Amino acid sequence: MIFSTLIINKDEPIYMQLETHIINGIKKGELKKDSKLPSTREASKLLNISRNSVIAAYEELESKGIITTKRGVGTFILMETKNTCEEYNINFMNMINNYADTLRDLDIIKSELPYKNNMISFKSIAPEPSLFNMDDFKRALLDAWTYEEENLLNYGYAKGYAPLIQYFLQYMEEKRVNTEGRDILITNGFTEAFDIIIGSLTKKGDIILCEEPTHNTALKIMKSHEIEVIQVKMNEEGMDLEDLQMKLEKYNPKFGYIIPSYNNPTGIVTKTKRRKEIYNLFRQYSVPIIEDGFNEELLYSSSPIDPIASLSGMGNSIIYIGSLSKILFPGLRIGWILASKDLIDVLESVKRGRTIHCSFLDQASFYYYLKSGAFSRYVKNVRKYYRDKYNLVMEMINEYIPYEYVTGEGGLHIFIKLKNNIDARQLLDICYKDNVLFMPGDIFYINSGKGKDCFRIGFGRVSDEDIKVGIKIIGDNVKKLSKPPYQ
Amino acid sequence: MIFSTLIINKDEPIYMQLETHIINGIKKGELKKDSKLPSTREASKLLNISRNSVIAAYEELESKGIITTKRGVGTFILMETKNTCEEYNINFMNMINNYADTLRDLDIIKSELPYKNNMISFKSIAPEPSLFNMDDFKRALLDAWTYEEENLLNYGYAKGYAPLIQYFLQYMEEKRVNTEGRDILITNGFTEAFDIIIGSLTKKGDIILCEEPTHNTALKIMKSHEIEVIQVKMNEEGMDLEDLQMKLEKYNPKFGYIIPSYNNPTGIVTKTKRRKEIYNLFRQYSVPIIEDGFNEELLYSSSPIDPIASLSGMGNSIIYIGSLSKILFPGLRIGWILASKDLIDVLESVKRGRTIHCSFLDQASFYYYLKSGAFSRYVKNVRKYYRDKYNLVMEMINEYIPYEYVTGEGGLHIFIKLKNNIDARQLLDICYKDNVLFMPGDIFYINSGKGKDCFRIGFGRVSDEDIKVGIKIIGDNVKKLSKPPYQ
Repeated sequence: MIFSTLIINKDEPIYMQLETHIINGIKKGELKKDSKLPSTREASKLLNISRNSVIAAYEELESKGIITTKRGVGTFILMETKNTCEEYNINFMNMINNYADTLRDLDIIKSELPYKNNMISFKSIAPEPSLFNMDDFKRALLDAWTYEEENLLNYGYAKGYAPLIQYFLQYMEEKRVNTEGRDILITNGFTEAFDIIIGSLTKKGDIILCEEPTHNTALKIMKSHEIEVIQVKMNEEGMDLEDLQMKLEKYNPKFGYIIPSYNNPTGIVTKTKRRKEIYNLFRQYSVPIIEDGFNEELLYSSSPIDPIASLSGMGNSIIYIGSLSKILFPGLRIGWILASKDLIDVLESVKRGRTIHCSFLDQASFYYYLKSGAFSRYVKNVRKYYRDKYNLVMEMINEYIPYEYVTGEGGLHIFIKLKNNIDARQLLDICYKDNVLFMPGDIFYINSGKGKDCFRIGFGRVSDEDIKVGIKIIGDNVKKLSKPPYQ
Repeated sequence: MIFSTLIINKDEPIYMQLETHIINGIKKGELKKDSKLPSTREASKLLNISRNSVIAAYEELESKGIITTKRGVGTFILMETKNTCEEYNINFMNMINNYADTLRDLDIIKSELPYKNNMISFKSIAPEPSLFNMDDFKRALLDAWTYEEENLLNYGYAKGYAPLIQYFLQYMEEKRVNTEGRDILITNGFTEAFDIIIGSLTKKGDIILCEEPTHNTALKIMKSHEIEVIQVKMNEEGMDLEDLQMKLEKYNPKFGYIIPSYNNPTGIVTKTKRRKEIYNLFRQYSVPIIEDGFNEELLYSSSPIDPIASLSGMGNSIIYIGSLSKILFPGLRIGWILASKDLIDVLESVKRGRTIHCSFLDQASFYYYLKSGAFSRYVKNVRKYYRDKYNLVMEMINEYIPYEYVTGEGGLHIFIKLKNNIDARQLLDICYKDNVLFMPGDIFYINSGKGKDCFRIGFGRVSDEDIKVGIKIIGDNVKKLSKPPYQ
C-alpha cells in the first residue's frame, strides 16, 4: 500500500513529507493516473498523523493539479506517470571555449593539493572568522531590516545601495582621493570589479603591465580575456622604475595593474615616494592605472599611505578597486570601483547585463555595520591580533627556514624565496605528507619558468601552536632538500 | 579655530564626526603637519562634548598615523597636507569594446522612458513587494544565523550553499526532471546563469534559435557575445514546428533557447504535446536546449506542466535555468543552473573567475525560508491575488483596447498586438503625456523592423484602480491613433 513505505520525520512539516511521498509514488509508477487515494480520515489513521496534515497535503497537491477531489466520490490521481521522449546526449566538453577553458585550468581550488582535516594549512590569506564581531553584524542586519523592509528583497539599482556608495565615497575622501566627478559601482568583490573592467575596456591581445609577482586571480582573469601580461620587477620599495620605464616604452600597454598596499603575494608595500615615481611614469606614457586597494588596514610597519589614486587630483587616470574582503566578511562579496562618472555609467550597464545588482540585503547590512563604527572597533581589535601573529611567523621563519629573502609588511601573508633553486612544489609535496600546506609561488607569475623557488605563507587563520609546528616542518624539509640526494 | 566649523549631529557617533572633521581640515590645508591640536580636555570644553568622545577620536587618528601624542608635550598633526602630482586624463570612452558597448546600448533602464512619481506604470513584470511574507523571511534569516554563524560571512563554495543545492535538486525531481548524474550551480539570478552558459560554450558568430518574441535580457546577452540570433515564430501552443524545423535545418544552431512556462513577453505557455514535438525536433538535429524555467508557479489556465528538461530522461541535452525572481524576492539574486555534473564542474570554475560565489547570507536565508514551507504558503496566497488581477486586466483590455490579438496565460504580464500597424512607441509617447507607461514590444525582437505594433503590460504591482484608469487611457490613445491625422 502506498503509505506503507512512508516514514515520518518529526523535524520537518508532516504535510510536506506526505506530499513528496505521493509525488514520488506517481513518479515511480506505483500510483497511476485515476487511481484512488485514501480519504483524509483514512490516511490520518493509517499514518497516525493529524487529519489536518493530510488535508494540507491534499490541498497542496490539488492546487498543483496533481490530484483531484470529487465530492462524495473520492480523491484521485490526476497526473500521468512521467513518460519521457527518446534521450540524446551532447558533448558539451567539446563546446568549452578558450574563456571557460582558461578559468577551468587556472582554478586553483581544483588544481592545487586539497586541504584535509587536521592539516596545518598556510594556503589561505583570508581573515580569521572567529574574530568577526558577529553581534555587531547581526545588529546591523536587523537595523537594515527595520529601515528598508521589503525594499531589500526587491530589484535594486545596478550601481548599488545608495547609502553604501556614499559611505565608500567618504571613505575614499578620507584617503585623500578626490571624488568630485567620480562615482562608485558596487561589485561582487575584487573579482567581479576586475573582470568587468578588463571585460569592458580591453581587446584580445592588449598588453597590461603588472608587478612581478602579482595576484593570481588577476592573472587568471587577464588570461581569460586573452590579455598579454607583462610583469615588471619589484624590489622592497615597489615596482622597479628602470624596468617599468623600459616596459612602458617597449610595450605601449593598455593599463597598469598595481597592488601598492600590499602586493599579493609578496606583502610588499609600495612607499610614498615610489608611488609618485610610478604614477609619473604612467602619466608620461599616458597609460591608465588599475589600482587594487586590496587592504590598507593592516599595515604593520608604516603609517597608512595614501592610495596612488590620491595623486591624480582631478585627473581620471586611475581606476580604483576597493574591497574589505581581506580583513572582513569576504563571504559578503562586496567590493567597489571608483572611477569617473561617465565610465561608471558604462560599467553599471555592463554589470546589469551580468548579474543585475549585488544583494541588497548584504549591502544594506554592511552599510549599517560600517556606519555604527563597528568596523573601526573591529580593525583596532584585530590589528594587534594579526600583528602578533605576523611577528610570530617572522620569528619562526627566521629561526627555521633558510631563505634567500623573505618579504611581507602587512596583511596576512609572507613570501619566501628559497636558496639553491629549491623547487617549492617539490617542497610542498614533502610537506603535504607531513600534513602541512602552503601556496606555491609559480601561480603568481605569468612566465611559467618563474617563481618555482618561492612560496606564500598565509597565517591569518593558523593557531600559534600550528604556526610553530608548521614552519618548523617546512624548514626541516627545506634543509632536507638542500642535501643529497636532492642536491 | 579648527573646531569652530564643526557642527555635531546627534544621530551619529560623535567621535567619528570629530575624526572626520580633523581629517578634512588636514586635507583642505587648514591643519598643517606638526601643528598642535587642543588637549582632550580643552577640545571637550570647546565643543561641549564628552571628553571620552575626544579621546576616542584622537585614539583613532593616532592608530591611523594621522596624529601623534607626545606625553607632556601635546598632540600634533603627523600627516602631510595632500600634495598631488600633475594630472592626466584618459579617454576611457574610446576604450569601450563591443561587449560593453552592446550592454550599454541595450540597457533599457537607461534608454526607455523613465518612471516619474504618480505615473501608472505597466513596465515592470516584477512581483508586488508588499505581498512578500517578510516575517517568514526574517525568521528564516535568524535561523540561518543561528545554524551557520560566521560561516555565512566567510568564503563559501562557488557551486553554492549545499543545502540549497539539495533543495533545488529535490524541487527539480518534483517537476519530474531526472537529477541523477546532474548537479546544480547557484547563480546571481537568470542573468548570470545565462551569461555564464553563453560565455563559456559559444564562439562569436554561433547561431542560437529562440522564440519570437523572447526575453530582451537574453537577446542583450546573446548580442553582447556576438551570437547570431534567429527567432522562430510562435502560436498559442508554443514554437511553430514548421518554422522550427526549417530553421534547425538551415542554420545548424549551437543551441535553442526556450521559455515554455511562460514566454516573456507573450505569456504563452507551451503545451505538453508541443513540448515533446519541439524536444524531438531538437533531438533530431542533435541541438541542445537552454530551458528558461522563468516561473511556472503562476499558471492560471492549466495545471503545472513538466519542464522540457523532464523529457530528456538520462540524456544531458537540456540545460535548465531556474529562478524564483518572477514571483519571490528578486533582490536576493538567486537562480540556478541544472546540468550534467561535468558541465556544472566547468561552469563552477567559470563562476569562481567572475564573482567567486553568491552571497551565502542570502542563500542560507533563502534555504531556511523554502524549507519552512513559507514559500508554498506564499504562492497559495499570491496565486489568487495575481489571478484576480490578471482577470481584471484582461477584462479592461477587452473593453477598452482594440487589438489584433492578446496573449497571456500566466505570470504577471500580457502581450498585445495592435491593428493597422499602429506604432507602439508612438502610442507610448502619447500615453506618457497622460502619465501611463508600458514596455514597447520591439525590444523583444532581434529584427529591428518587428514588434513595432506590440507592447507588454506588466500588472503585478499596479493597483486595481490604476489598472482601470491606465488601460482605459491606453485604449483611448489607441483609438486616437486609429483616426486622422494619424491614419
